[in-house]
Amino acid sequence: MKKSLLALAIFGAFAGTASAQSSVTIYGIVDTGIAHIDNGGDSVNQVRSGNNNSSRIGFKGVEDLGTGLKAEFVLEQGINTDDGTGDPGFNRLSFVGLNGGFGKVRLGKQNTPIKEALSKIDPFGTGGLVNAITYLGGSANGIAAIPERNPNQIIYITPDFSGFSGEIAYQFGEAAGDNSANRVWGAQLGYANGPLNVQFAYSDGNTTTAAGVDTSDLKIALLGATYDFGAVKLHGAYSQKKLESNNGGADLKVKSGLIGVTVPFGASAIRAEYINNNDDRDDRDNNVLALSYTYSLSKRTTLYATYARVDNDDLSAQGFGTSPAVVPGENTSGLAVGIQHNF
Amino acid sequence: MKKSLLALAIFGAFAGTASAQSSVTIYGIVDTGIAHIDNGGDSVNQVRSGNNNSSRIGFKGVEDLGTGLKAEFVLEQGINTDDGTGDPGFNRLSFVGLNGGFGKVRLGKQNTPIKEALSKIDPFGTGGLVNAITYLGGSANGIAAIPERNPNQIIYITPDFSGFSGEIAYQFGEAAGDNSANRVWGAQLGYANGPLNVQFAYSDGNTTTAAGVDTSDLKIALLGATYDFGAVKLHGAYSQKKLESNNGGADLKVKSGLIGVTVPFGASAIRAEYINNNDDRDDRDNNVLALSYTYSLSKRTTLYATYARVDNDDLSAQGFGTSPAVVPGENTSGLAVGIQHNF
Amino acid sequence: MKKSLLALAIFGAFAGTASAQSSVTIYGIVDTGIAHIDNGGDSVNQVRSGNNNSSRIGFKGVEDLGTGLKAEFVLEQGINTDDGTGDPGFNRLSFVGLNGGFGKVRLGKQNTPIKEALSKIDPFGTGGLVNAITYLGGSANGIAAIPERNPNQIIYITPDFSGFSGEIAYQFGEAAGDNSANRVWGAQLGYANGPLNVQFAYSDGNTTTAAGVDTSDLKIALLGATYDFGAVKLHGAYSQKKLESNNGGADLKVKSGLIGVTVPFGASAIRAEYINNNDDRDDRDNNVLALSYTYSLSKRTTLYATYARVDNDDLSAQGFGTSPAVVPGENTSGLAVGIQHNF
Repeated sequence: MKKSLLALAIFGAFAGTASAQSSVTIYGIVDTGIAHIDNGGDSVNQVRSGNNNSSRIGFKGVEDLGTGLKAEFVLEQGINTDDGTGDPGFNRLSFVGLNGGFGKVRLGKQNTPIKEALSKIDPFGTGGLVNAITYLGGSANGIAAIPERNPNQIIYITPDFSGFSGEIAYQFGEAAGDNSANRVWGAQLGYANGPLNVQFAYSDGNTTTAAGVDTSDLKIALLGATYDFGAVKLHGAYSQKKLESNNGGADLKVKSGLIGVTVPFGASAIRAEYINNNDDRDDRDNNVLALSYTYSLSKRTTLYATYARVDNDDLSAQGFGTSPAVVPGENTSGLAVGIQHNF
Repeated sequence: MKKSLLALAIFGAFAGTASAQSSVTIYGIVDTGIAHIDNGGDSVNQVRSGNNNSSRIGFKGVEDLGTGLKAEFVLEQGINTDDGTGDPGFNRLSFVGLNGGFGKVRLGKQNTPIKEALSKIDPFGTGGLVNAITYLGGSANGIAAIPERNPNQIIYITPDFSGFSGEIAYQFGEAAGDNSANRVWGAQLGYANGPLNVQFAYSDGNTTTAAGVDTSDLKIALLGATYDFGAVKLHGAYSQKKLESNNGGADLKVKSGLIGVTVPFGASAIRAEYINNNDDRDDRDNNVLALSYTYSLSKRTTLYATYARVDNDDLSAQGFGTSPAVVPGENTSGLAVGIQHNF
Repeated sequence: MKKSLLALAIFGAFAGTASAQSSVTIYGIVDTGIAHIDNGGDSVNQVRSGNNNSSRIGFKGVEDLGTGLKAEFVLEQGINTDDGTGDPGFNRLSFVGLNGGFGKVRLGKQNTPIKEALSKIDPFGTGGLVNAITYLGGSANGIAAIPERNPNQIIYITPDFSGFSGEIAYQFGEAAGDNSANRVWGAQLGYANGPLNVQFAYSDGNTTTAAGVDTSDLKIALLGATYDFGAVKLHGAYSQKKLESNNGGADLKVKSGLIGVTVPFGASAIRAEYINNNDDRDDRDNNVLALSYTYSLSKRTTLYATYARVDNDDLSAQGFGTSPAVVPGENTSGLAVGIQHNF
């Protein structure tokens, strides 16, 4: 602070007005558009937040501790920019950590490893009207969706070894008397070399009732890759989500595939994605198709138009948000045009 | 960011401490005072937020996109500085937009056009213990108050044409199956030339029940003007608020007039306002009288003392906040002294 | 703002990116660790926020008004960095004030005088897993804990007179019709001279039911001191908390003593604290023992390990947070290791 104030005195023009702030960067995304949502019943036109990427505001900082060690923190809050509502606190990210030659250790609310892996594969970066974190695995099929951000996690991230990197995550279940109840293990392994990016991730979480009965395990495996030909980038992923019953019930399983393509040209890009969710049970499959055009006005500001549709089997109820309510078995669609501004 | 870091390296004294922040301005108002509130029953002394202007904190930024085009965003949260409570999210303003020679287009939660117009006429700038956005139109008379900030709005603001400017707003009703339900149209037209400022605004909103019945339309028209003689600034406005029944009920109508005066002298100013709300129904009229003295310690910090009273007819229940509860038919008053600090 | 923009134009390298921010400092603490909590029943392992100091984010600023007068504001929100949850608004601090040669006057939500005094005596600075603001006075003994931060306060803080300083606080009860109901008076007097710091504080608060019956007064007196020998700093405090019945019930009284020690060596410090709470009623006493080791990686980043235990009498129920639930009469303990990062 003192150095800064001295500098302010030297460059007098700043003196009255420049910031004494030293260690925090404010950042965020304001993404708002106009959407037409058809969830199988009456459709609706609406102003809608986060059609290309979730709107958010965050505070972060890095402190150099010397000898290669750094401390870092991130506090990030999700916001609905259509109506200004939001959750209190920093519901997206809230962690502190140390990093250095050994890698990174972070503690708090963070992305899951499977989200980290998927965000590198999904043409939509796991954000926006349609994205793989919500739609891969058939979240509306009676099994929990792929966990995106978990609280109470400790995560270790390796440094880069010739293109290889990975992370291990442990989420504390915080159940009194049973430290394995509701805990989630996760891991991610990636390989990036020139045009190729391969990602593998795994998640294994206990589900325990309030009465302390370990009813089931949710196990998710993901393998994905992208290959960038320059003019075209190809995306592909396969995931398996399995809810194993521990009390005699039947196991539930969803196998999902994703193919996608990104075609940049000048300031524009076209992205397309097709997801097939294949539930072991009858009539619960769905297919998702999404197509997006973006035009960047600058590095920070992008116009977009995205169309997506879901073909639901009779008992599948995958739509676009919860308002209007999704009608099971009906096909659903969404169309959004808008602007994403990063700050 | 890179340019900034380069600059930081050049001006070395900054290097260890200066902010890397590039694109966000934090701003706000902390306005807290001590008030005596008499809402017709037992009176109360209290620490009270927002007696001269609503307390708030906001984040905003403008990005120059080149060729005259700019992107902008505002995220603004209201706060109660007396007890530190508030709403999550950015409940005052939350919008993103583009502007240039064509004017401005903004999307999200924003002021209504009628609030924009009124804020230019009201001696109290539609803020504080008494202000025209709350008191004009007799908000406690069984008809909704003049809408101040609406979510899900798209607004187009014209550039200035020789003193003329205006805006058009459309608030999506977001009702499934009926895109006209609960939608609000608004428009504002202003003329500013030297000492004269004339404002006209109109709002037309549907009110639809959950069952989809379009019960009524709320139509508000406002005409106002200020004239600045230098030593004295005069304020006047007339508004008509009409709730038109669409299902056979009687229409409700409130006609309201406002006169005001601002007298600046040195760092001080005296502002006074008289509002008459004339409800078509019996015994629902009220008159509002407000008188304020402000003393500016700087451009950003102001001391204030404000007194206001409302003469309520038998069925009118206009007071100062909701604690203590307003007793219908009783006259109410408020006195507040405090400090407003802008940052 | 204009000056700043001019400066930005002159130092062109900044022009595109540097902040126009003038008057706000963002600050905070992210303190997250891993804890083992035994509240007398089933124990739990958890990621836990605020083990060394409460996690928070704040915005503050000071404006020089000339002639020795300054305006200041603080807005500070508590956060749970383990899971990202928090309260809306600025629930820790939210005040505006003026200061100068006469001292400081502040209005809004602020620390109580007794908290201010105790924070200078407590080896743990009234923050973290165990701290005197929570544990001194036996908060789980059926009497309200020592008030830490009160809303609706006006506080006057004296300047320093040869080492003496003090403050007087008045919290408005804001009860309609009875301005003495629920009001809290507080005062603090301190003397700091070289190695010696002596603190006295007093609090007197009415407790009034919703029906307007003044049921009781909560009176708290605190006397404490620290003496810094350099290699060792000693801490001691005595408090008396008395709930006086105003409707014929019995008075409740808790006498508490605290002794502590701080031993700094290099970047490390060991802190220890013992608290004895002696309730006039039978079987409600408890003793608290806490031991902490900290290692500072920098001025802003500290690693810590803290162990604490409470010996509860049969009807005492003092533990570490509320999850898991505290079992009355059982001894409780907490162990936390983690990192505190200030920004």
